Amino acid sequence: MNAREALRKISDEKPLVHHLTNYVTVNLVANVTLSTGALPVMAHAAEEVEEMASLASALVLNIGTLDPGQIESMLLAGRKANERGIPIILDPVGAGATSLRNRTAERLLAELDVAVVCGNAGEVATLAGLDAEVRGVESLAGDAQTAALQAARSLGVTVAATGPVDYVSDGGGRTLAVSNGHALMGRVVGTGDASTSTIGCFAAVGGADVETVAHALAYYGRAGEIAAGSAGVEGGGTFEPRFLDALQALAGDHESLEGNVRVEELSVG
Amino acid sequence: MNAREALRKISDEKPLVHHLTNYVTVNLVANVTLSTGALPVMAHAAEEVEEMASLASALVLNIGTLDPGQIESMLLAGRKANERGIPIILDPVGAGATSLRNRTAERLLAELDVAVVCGNAGEVATLAGLDAEVRGVESLAGDAQTAALQAARSLGVTVAATGPVDYVSDGGGRTLAVSNGHALMGRVVGTGDASTSTIGCFAAVGGADVETVAHALAYYGRAGEIAAGSAGVEGGGTFEPRFLDALQALAGDHESLEGNVRVEELSVG
Amino acid sequence: MNAREALRKISDEKPLVHHLTNYVTVNLVANVTLSTGALPVMAHAAEEVEEMASLASALVLNIGTLDPGQIESMLLAGRKANERGIPIILDPVGAGATSLRNRTAERLLAELDVAVVCGNAGEVATLAGLDAEVRGVESLAGDAQTAALQAARSLGVTVAATGPVDYVSDGGGRTLAVSNGHALMGRVVGTGDASTSTIGCFAAVGGADVETVAHALAYYGRAGEIAAGSAGVEGGGTFEPRFLDALQALAGDHESLEGNVRVEELSVG
Repeated sequence: MNAREALRKISDEKPLVHHLTNYVTVNLVANVTLSTGALPVMAHAAEEVEEMASLASALVLNIGTLDPGQIESMLLAGRKANERGIPIILDPVGAGATSLRNRTAERLLAELDVAVVCGNAGEVATLAGLDAEVRGVESLAGDAQTAALQAARSLGVTVAATGPVDYVSDGGGRTLAVSNGHALMGRVVGTGDASTSTIGCFAAVGGADVETVAHALAYYGRAGEIAAGSAGVEGGGTFEPRFLDALQALAGDHESLEGNVRVEELSVG
Repeated sequence: MNAREALRKISDEKPLVHHLTNYVTVNLVANVTLSTGALPVMAHAAEEVEEMASLASALVLNIGTLDPGQIESMLLAGRKANERGIPIILDPVGAGATSLRNRTAERLLAELDVAVVCGNAGEVATLAGLDAEVRGVESLAGDAQTAALQAARSLGVTVAATGPVDYVSDGGGRTLAVSNGHALMGRVVGTGDASTSTIGCFAAVGGADVETVAHALAYYGRAGEIAAGSAGVEGGGTFEPRFLDALQALAGDHESLEGNVRVEELSVG
Repeated sequence: MNAREALRKISDEKPLVHHLTNYVTVNLVANVTLSTGALPVMAHAAEEVEEMASLASALVLNIGTLDPGQIESMLLAGRKANERGIPIILDPVGAGATSLRNRTAERLLAELDVAVVCGNAGEVATLAGLDAEVRGVESLAGDAQTAALQAARSLGVTVAATGPVDYVSDGGGRTLAVSNGHALMGRVVGTGDASTSTIGCFAAVGGADVETVAHALAYYGRAGEIAAGSAGVEGGGTFEPRFLDALQALAGDHESLEGNVRVEELSVG
């Protein structure tokens, strides 16, 4: 589904996107979800995650600040999501940095039917079993395209590896490159996490195919371009509020995306 | 107590407002409390909530991201607040969405002497036993006026049901309508939570009667109007910093509220 | 190490600064760390804190929203930091308010080799055994200079007591006064927490001597001055994004700090 169609459906349906996510960027993630036209909800207690997931149209699992209780709740919510057939989007934050994060990402992928994995090049490379350089939750180097393709192949899910250019692969014949975006997005903590939530919004109405995922990232990156060009933006601090405005503006006037989505099919696979 | 008097007392006394709240909007809630002139403090460990509540002038309980440990701490802090006679303000975030939230809101109301309940129309309707449409933590529909009146009657506390117009009822003879506010407040995650904290600031110095609660919401909504009219505000992103500025400006120059508070007594009850 | 040299090293090395911190201001703290040129990472689970601390160049412990599990994780991470010889920076948020906070600050100082303590005057005075007036997490009064000197003497670590003027003492012959800063920093929740993280960034590359700590605060305060003077800043809300921009600008052009760092050696001790 392309970005314009997805945003129109999100606006019509106001899908609930249930998050189990980290406490560092949770506010940005919630605001990006709301700005895109969906309804964010965060609920992590084992006592309610299944019920909340039963109300949702997509489930986002972000392992940025893991603890054992949260892992169990992710599994509970994830099983319910699978039972209901709603897409699970996994952001393996910090995979490659600690064994808890590696093990948890692997366990979630093994025990749940994850629809999309979205992470930076280093995190995705780690999941693909490739060499990666990850420092904390930052990817310092790595070939995002190869990482996306290899991870998608080995995991059997749609994989997005984000960076200056984002690559989205189904592991089979299709890999899409998304060149929307702006360097200022890297000056704000959590823009990676929030790109995963944007995929959650799109998947809630459009499913988890490579086109829908790539268009979520194109919409997200296009908002970054608009924000970066706004008057008075001089760094990550002033960029962030303009970025939320731009997401809201695009979500409300999705026709303006026409001609500005830079998604390219690569002749590889 | 009217808004100007409350803001003057808050400025003089700098009351400590103890919060047990959700991790999604906690930063906004703290900044709104500080901007209003009070001192926010967040403390949730069973080991210290009673001691912290002993230092506070009001206690805000927000169930937005519940877990069992937090519920026990809310009860501990709440009992101490009752013992000391400081007001408890409850925001039943997501009541109507999951049974954990419903049960917890009911338990807090049963075991504690809550002074004010503040939520959106759907959450308040749920507590009143009325039909409600809640999706996650958003109210999709509902008659806020009826919800406020019925909940106040059945719970025996002051109830504020927020929305385009806020209704504040004591369940007896008095229901006030507050028409200050702006639609951009709905484009920022947590403005509902922060309205509850603003009531906490006002109740800390003025008590929990309908007038004080309504004036807290009028001040809060007036700040939204000012922010929405500020140069450069084009969406929820740019609105939020201006909103905090406007709260600070009004709290520092409360006389400027004169003539701009739209609180109306309704002839119902 | 002076600010310019420290910022150059941070830019070259991109040190990982591991935080165990509160959930109220964690987003600001992460953004300030990133804006200074370092990489923030938050990880609190006992299962991974040692491994994460093994990757880090400094460890920041902030007790703003304590609970028992977090305390144990702080000790685990702290022992690993000591083993590796990386500096631990402790922010005793709310010391003086509750006995849990007092006991925890004391325990961390007793069981770990802390390099720097950074807090407001009331918190630092509490650790020094002096009278202090703390309301929640705000210091209402107190002589920051005496607090810094006494705490540094009794604890045997570098101590920074922040306020309108910051004092940094080694408890021996050297106390430095830092007069950079702006009153608007007090209108944003978490600027104290984030100053501690800035010290963490500087200590990661420059160690924990009084000069490096004072220069971290001077850089931080200078960014506040620049932000406060920016067009359109009218309160804490609009100040915050400009503050992050100013930190980024100074970190990227540290030569512009020349002549603007106001660090003075006091002839006391």
